[in-house]
Amino acid sequence: MKIAVLSPVAWRTPPRHYGPWEQVAYNLTEELVKAGLEVTLFATGDSQTSAHLDAVIEMGYEEDRNQDAKVLECLHISNLMEKARNFDIIHNHFDFLPLTWSRLISTPIVTTIHGFSSPRIIPVYKKYNDTCHYVSISNSDRAPELDYIATVYNGLNVESFSFSDSHEDYLLYFGRIHHDKGTAEAIEIAESCGKKLIIAGIIQDEAYFNTRVKPHLNEQITFIGAAGPAMRNSLMSKALALLHPINFEEPFGMSVAEAMLCGTPVVAFNKGSMPELIKDRKTGFLVHNIAEAVEAVKQLTYVSREACHTWAASMFSAEKMAKDYMEVYSQILGGKH
Amino acid sequence: MKIAVLSPVAWRTPPRHYGPWEQVAYNLTEELVKAGLEVTLFATGDSQTSAHLDAVIEMGYEEDRNQDAKVLECLHISNLMEKARNFDIIHNHFDFLPLTWSRLISTPIVTTIHGFSSPRIIPVYKKYNDTCHYVSISNSDRAPELDYIATVYNGLNVESFSFSDSHEDYLLYFGRIHHDKGTAEAIEIAESCGKKLIIAGIIQDEAYFNTRVKPHLNEQITFIGAAGPAMRNSLMSKALALLHPINFEEPFGMSVAEAMLCGTPVVAFNKGSMPELIKDRKTGFLVHNIAEAVEAVKQLTYVSREACHTWAASMFSAEKMAKDYMEVYSQILGGKH
Repeated sequence: MKIAVLSPVAWRTPPRHYGPWEQVAYNLTEELVKAGLEVTLFATGDSQTSAHLDAVIEMGYEEDRNQDAKVLECLHISNLMEKARNFDIIHNHFDFLPLTWSRLISTPIVTTIHGFSSPRIIPVYKKYNDTCHYVSISNSDRAPELDYIATVYNGLNVESFSFSDSHEDYLLYFGRIHHDKGTAEAIEIAESCGKKLIIAGIIQDEAYFNTRVKPHLNEQITFIGAAGPAMRNSLMSKALALLHPINFEEPFGMSVAEAMLCGTPVVAFNKGSMPELIKDRKTGFLVHNIAEAVEAVKQLTYVSREACHTWAASMFSAEKMAKDYMEVYSQILGGKH
Repeated sequence: MKIAVLSPVAWRTPPRHYGPWEQVAYNLTEELVKAGLEVTLFATGDSQTSAHLDAVIEMGYEEDRNQDAKVLECLHISNLMEKARNFDIIHNHFDFLPLTWSRLISTPIVTTIHGFSSPRIIPVYKKYNDTCHYVSISNSDRAPELDYIATVYNGLNVESFSFSDSHEDYLLYFGRIHHDKGTAEAIEIAESCGKKLIIAGIIQDEAYFNTRVKPHLNEQITFIGAAGPAMRNSLMSKALALLHPINFEEPFGMSVAEAMLCGTPVVAFNKGSMPELIKDRKTGFLVHNIAEAVEAVKQLTYVSREACHTWAASMFSAEKMAKDYMEVYSQILGGKH
């Protein structure tokens, strides 16, 4: 089976730090190659892959801001669309824009919807509802107006995360510094518990960081900026818990799955995909407010780190994700390949 | 001959006030209908046309800012591309984005390049150089890396502009309020001449307006905001001259052609397309600085308003533009239609 994986071009595939869509496209591509498929990854020229790389642009527009994102996007997408006949299936990880080429090619397109940046983009998905085979990354993230062929959870490269059955005495916040992700709430929880908190992530909202985070930083509450893979692994495997007090309906939480894979339970606000990712009281706690989160931190000793790891490895591995996607491809191709 | 005209969807076609690309698409469409072609105009739903209107979005994204421009653009363009086989030719007035669908359809595309917003968009034009038949709107606006099939000057609806062989004692500035267009320079010229200046246009750069324009407003220097067609006609036909002291290589100056059509000479900085639009000392003056412009204003009595009108009517009418474009279409279709 010849498959084209279309990654976004905001960041390198895989991303150096932040870039969850590129990370999933990378993880999937690696597994599809392992499974013996002929895979071409369409991504930035500095990307890394075991598949064949097809790139018409050098670097992501978020990594070289002198570039015009619109120009990069349309050159990148059209490059694949013009070669569509070389593939049995196209797997789109690039949001809604590629859909608008789909009726001019005969190769079927599978589209993983990594989240809706705004309800204003739904009309494009509605237009191509009958043809572009939508996959949701959690059941909670489905738009009622759309039809889906499957839910496939994001998958991690299990070998990149070290399980640890012991921990140190700090809480971890891992994600973009932004109101959506609840950095300020995490600080409040840690302060109420009298626990150390390590905050890692890119600053997405500078004003939020300056008013809601920076004034709280001290020996107990520390900010270390963006963390690459090695640092992430070390932070996650030694934490008492990951705090994930989100303020939005998160379609999937990569860091939640990653933490559990390392054996670290997660205390999360019960929104979006959280009840699908976390087994309440088994791999963490689904709570509704800061007071409940503080209470949950006191109960963490009752959670088995082994159980966290086993659950995450069974549900959120790249291998499982690839297997699920290969079933989707087969379903679309009707056993032709 | 069945032709699809693709207008932008920033503004209504024709625009209510500002929107030169939509204005040209409108003028051309009206003339092509008059010439007996079967024309479909792809534009916003509130557009007006004698052709068949095909619209999938209601209003321009500049007129209802709650919309997502990227969503509107891709729905609008794909709507045409999916119907490409219904047309003998597609005439693209929508910048570079539609080019990236062109290799997936068999209908030829003529692309009027209304200007390069940035050199960063040229790679898209380069990629499709062999197939998308570029037309420049002045010889001065040609990018050396690209091939062009023709230059076709923008054309005005001659009946919408009243020729006047007399004038009142004011100078006119007509255009976006922006450094590029030289609003501040026009004020300086008028002040030096001791002449009244009427400034009409949308404020594109608020800071520029507040610092460079607003402090000069008084009985002599007046600002009237955006002017619709009736007001524009009345302002232009009674002016002593249009001041056009531009600070950029303007690809075409609609207001320059419009003023001359009304019989009003133009004093312009000699940049971009100005030497193609203005016959120096016959229909206005091509000058290099404010001092020369002040001198030119004193010489205006030697310019014949009749000559201004005759020149503009012969060179910049919608009828001539349509005739020129029909020759381009024939050249591409090789006499097939």
